[in-house]
Amino acid sequence: MTAINHVVRLARRPVGEIQRDDFTIADEAVPVPGDGEFLVKNRFVSLDPAMRGWMSAGKSYVPPVEIGAVMRAFAAGTVETSNHPLFKVGDTVTGLFGAQQYAVSNGRGAMPVDISKAPLERWIGGLGMPGTTAYFGLLDIGKPKAGETVVVSAASGAVGSIVGQIAKIVGARAVGIAGGPEKCRYVTEELGFDACVDYKAGNLAAALGAACPDGIDVYFENVGGNILDTVLTLMNPFGRIPVCGLISAYNATEPQPGPRNLRSVLVNRLTVRGFIIFDFADRYEEAATALGMWAGEGRLKFREDIRDGGLDAFPDVLKLLYTGGNNGKLVLRI
Amino acid sequence: MTAINHVVRLARRPVGEIQRDDFTIADEAVPVPGDGEFLVKNRFVSLDPAMRGWMSAGKSYVPPVEIGAVMRAFAAGTVETSNHPLFKVGDTVTGLFGAQQYAVSNGRGAMPVDISKAPLERWIGGLGMPGTTAYFGLLDIGKPKAGETVVVSAASGAVGSIVGQIAKIVGARAVGIAGGPEKCRYVTEELGFDACVDYKAGNLAAALGAACPDGIDVYFENVGGNILDTVLTLMNPFGRIPVCGLISAYNATEPQPGPRNLRSVLVNRLTVRGFIIFDFADRYEEAATALGMWAGEGRLKFREDIRDGGLDAFPDVLKLLYTGGNNGKLVLRI
Repeated sequence: MTAINHVVRLARRPVGEIQRDDFTIADEAVPVPGDGEFLVKNRFVSLDPAMRGWMSAGKSYVPPVEIGAVMRAFAAGTVETSNHPLFKVGDTVTGLFGAQQYAVSNGRGAMPVDISKAPLERWIGGLGMPGTTAYFGLLDIGKPKAGETVVVSAASGAVGSIVGQIAKIVGARAVGIAGGPEKCRYVTEELGFDACVDYKAGNLAAALGAACPDGIDVYFENVGGNILDTVLTLMNPFGRIPVCGLISAYNATEPQPGPRNLRSVLVNRLTVRGFIIFDFADRYEEAATALGMWAGEGRLKFREDIRDGGLDAFPDVLKLLYTGGNNGKLVLRI
Repeated sequence: MTAINHVVRLARRPVGEIQRDDFTIADEAVPVPGDGEFLVKNRFVSLDPAMRGWMSAGKSYVPPVEIGAVMRAFAAGTVETSNHPLFKVGDTVTGLFGAQQYAVSNGRGAMPVDISKAPLERWIGGLGMPGTTAYFGLLDIGKPKAGETVVVSAASGAVGSIVGQIAKIVGARAVGIAGGPEKCRYVTEELGFDACVDYKAGNLAAALGAACPDGIDVYFENVGGNILDTVLTLMNPFGRIPVCGLISAYNATEPQPGPRNLRSVLVNRLTVRGFIIFDFADRYEEAATALGMWAGEGRLKFREDIRDGGLDAFPDVLKLLYTGGNNGKLVLRI
């Protein structure tokens, strides 16, 4: 029986919301690894908000996915054949293997993972990019001190949920912003945030102000738009705003209005700093060690939103990220 | 002959543009210094963009000027009588003495200045707050390296003109943004910037792009609004944006639309940091020493826009700051 590769390729650049026809999904021959390469059979593909940017032309932190190329994606799987000294047949690995059943890798950006410590999907879930992003963004850029107030948007999401839990670990007050009572309940009751504000309930400014009686020292930004504007009115002097994502604008065909309350940056001497997790590549192990330790101590909880349907469901599952339809780190099972 | 104090007091909070009736200007008795105080006769009053904020109610980095209080202002003058151990009769001094002919000071925030090194008005001009602001904002927050491109808005202004000259001193390319060909000519031909873009000439994006062929590494922000938005499209990865002022919004009665291109902060990992010169109070002497040295070497040029008319002209001269009617550091001669 000959193995078949099932591959998601970018067919065209999306305009506005992602459409199914932005991709082609087809059977192809399985690639053959050359010298210093290995073949991985993917079992899980990670769906990340950054994908919308990767699909678009234009200057960004990484080149866009070319039209006709395999859709860029983090994936987790098992090494099937190997000509690489560090990756053995049977190893469980994660890496930027793409939205496809089989991938060839030269090992760059790939990492063997120990599934006795966490299930494979968690290594591209809470222990993977989202946790690493939360770790560096909050601790290196946000620099929360014990007793300070940390607010995070998209608080029930993959990154946000870890941000608030790390904030608690370092002794800060953790306040989430999320959409709807169910997500807010999860954030406070299951993740242990001190408070969570439902931005869909209206009157965000009053609710957030009540949840942050001492103002906001760190705002971990995942969303942008109106929420950022409201947060800016509550920031304390010398506050820090790590900018991790601006998901509210990802599907917009025109640039969205920016924060009107930029004066807060000046008068409160705020530091607003964008970051990309790739900038911390030489310190991934530090994050994995700390996150693994905290998870082992039961101080971190993860929620993976694992979807079935295989690669044919890739476009529809991806769209959930931009409509708030997911609840936790979105992963597609192949 | 009894001395009379002539005093500018805040009559009401401005709505939109500053009006003459926002102030009362009247003769009063000269105050008498108590123990540990001295009386200064002001000869120059500094007019600064921050004044619009000081006149407004609301949270800011310093409390607003109370209705009925003397208008807050930096001034330079001569000590007339003194019960203070460090300030002697005849000393020339600068400080937050207010918009008035005579002021009593306990010495806090006041500084004796040596008028053999620079004329008195320069000590509240280029060698005073504007130069100090440029020094710390550019070097501590902007951190330009030799060969990098530094862009500064309001480039012919008090702060901007020094920012570009310091950028040149540290080996960076200095590009100004200013309004009109005359200001641009001054910036390039007299101050020695590498280029200056006239934002009133239209097509700012193309002109700024042409003036910054290697992109922008540091943007010293004095203006906000559309100019910031255009700059954001040209920022290089890991660029720095010290936010010194947002003069385009100071007279607005509603918050102005913010930068639409905030995505640049994320994808380029920019650092946007507001600052207030008061935060560097324990290092003023460092700035004064460096600025004085560079000025003595002829490497820094200042332009003071000294206006006559005395304190009665205070409201009208102040308005020049918000209409682009001044050319250089605005100082009112009493």
